[in-house]
Amino acid sequence: MIKGILYGLGLGPGNPELITVKAWRLLSTVEVIAYPKPPTGESFARKIAAPFIPDDATEVALIIPMASERAPAQQAYDSAVKTIADHLENGKDVAFISNGDPFLYSTFMYVHERLKQRFEIEIVPGVTSLTAAAAATRRPLAARNDILKVLPAPLDSDTLKAQIATADSVIINKVGKHFNRVRVVIEELGLVENTQIVENATTEYEVARPLSQIKDGEQPYFTTMIIYKGSENWT
Amino acid sequence: MIKGILYGLGLGPGNPELITVKAWRLLSTVEVIAYPKPPTGESFARKIAAPFIPDDATEVALIIPMASERAPAQQAYDSAVKTIADHLENGKDVAFISNGDPFLYSTFMYVHERLKQRFEIEIVPGVTSLTAAAAATRRPLAARNDILKVLPAPLDSDTLKAQIATADSVIINKVGKHFNRVRVVIEELGLVENTQIVENATTEYEVARPLSQIKDGEQPYFTTMIIYKGSENWT
Repeated sequence: MIKGILYGLGLGPGNPELITVKAWRLLSTVEVIAYPKPPTGESFARKIAAPFIPDDATEVALIIPMASERAPAQQAYDSAVKTIADHLENGKDVAFISNGDPFLYSTFMYVHERLKQRFEIEIVPGVTSLTAAAAATRRPLAARNDILKVLPAPLDSDTLKAQIATADSVIINKVGKHFNRVRVVIEELGLVENTQIVENATTEYEVARPLSQIKDGEQPYFTTMIIYKGSENWT
Repeated sequence: MIKGILYGLGLGPGNPELITVKAWRLLSTVEVIAYPKPPTGESFARKIAAPFIPDDATEVALIIPMASERAPAQQAYDSAVKTIADHLENGKDVAFISNGDPFLYSTFMYVHERLKQRFEIEIVPGVTSLTAAAAATRRPLAARNDILKVLPAPLDSDTLKAQIATADSVIINKVGKHFNRVRVVIEELGLVENTQIVENATTEYEVARPLSQIKDGEQPYFTTMIIYKGSENWT
């Protein structure tokens, strides 16, 4: 039997109309759709793809435990990968969907690592939250010879501070519970006026606000921070 | 008369199937399509959009001079912007198309800067060459708390070296004539084995090769470099 193909399918930042034509085609034709999902609540990737998934598609949910240790997540990857591999061995194509891009801070990477020696895998890139957040702020992210950095918020404060100091534009992702600590770093660098907070970019709940407008104690959800240090003089 | 809307439309890295559903809809309905174009040869953005542009669309080419001084380019921006503004004043919507994303190292930023006070502008993000190049190398770009940087090749060698040294993954764009100088920087850092060269990502001419396979004197065209320094241990 000819094995199926595994597609790593990027779905973009949240608005279903920002999926690519290629992702639309594959969602419409691939027999098995797999996605990451939190233990409670819905899968963000599944929600973006919902308008495009046929009624008769087979679905595989990879439920990612909330534990901070690695072992429970690794068991979840192993278990879902076994189901996906069975479908591929049976000649069925599988699309593993990711919000954003499958090769940028995604769950798909762990599936890819486990299956890349055994099956044909095709990566379909997607629109990332990096440029979606910049669009929400109505300001270009980087131009000319600007240095752009993506810094995950869990990095320690000294590392964040040193890296921000030597960049022109900075995206801080994975903000979550680190919001207040990152805010202090930005305050200490004197960059509060340069910082925008973007929530739920490209969806109906999109909000972009200057950091200076976020009240003490407020903890924005599903957030990307952008620090604009470069010139705004685009002549 | 109600003024038209200006769309900053990202078209993705090159494969027409990687445009978004939203870009497809707008290309099909907006009356005026504008794009950057070199003095000789075709517009890359226009080429990506070609399958989706109606026969009766009005087209505006912004011809970007090859001069290294700023003044000729600024005159070209001013001139094209005047034509675009006339269409918008006459109530026609205009889509200014960019390969990649309109807010990431694009020509559109200069149009945006000149018109943002006068007209309604909507940014439609696109798939960038950053993740398209990673897909071509079949290796994830960044995961977990990896520091990702985008460094334009025209930066001086000392800056490149210091920035690469403190990153996990690096994209070097705008490589062009800087290829050999950047290669020396990477050699001096001992990172030749960590570096992939990607040409024409997602198109029929896509090639991804290790830097170690590029012969002396060879000057790859339309190139993105990726330096992978982070762990490959995605368990």
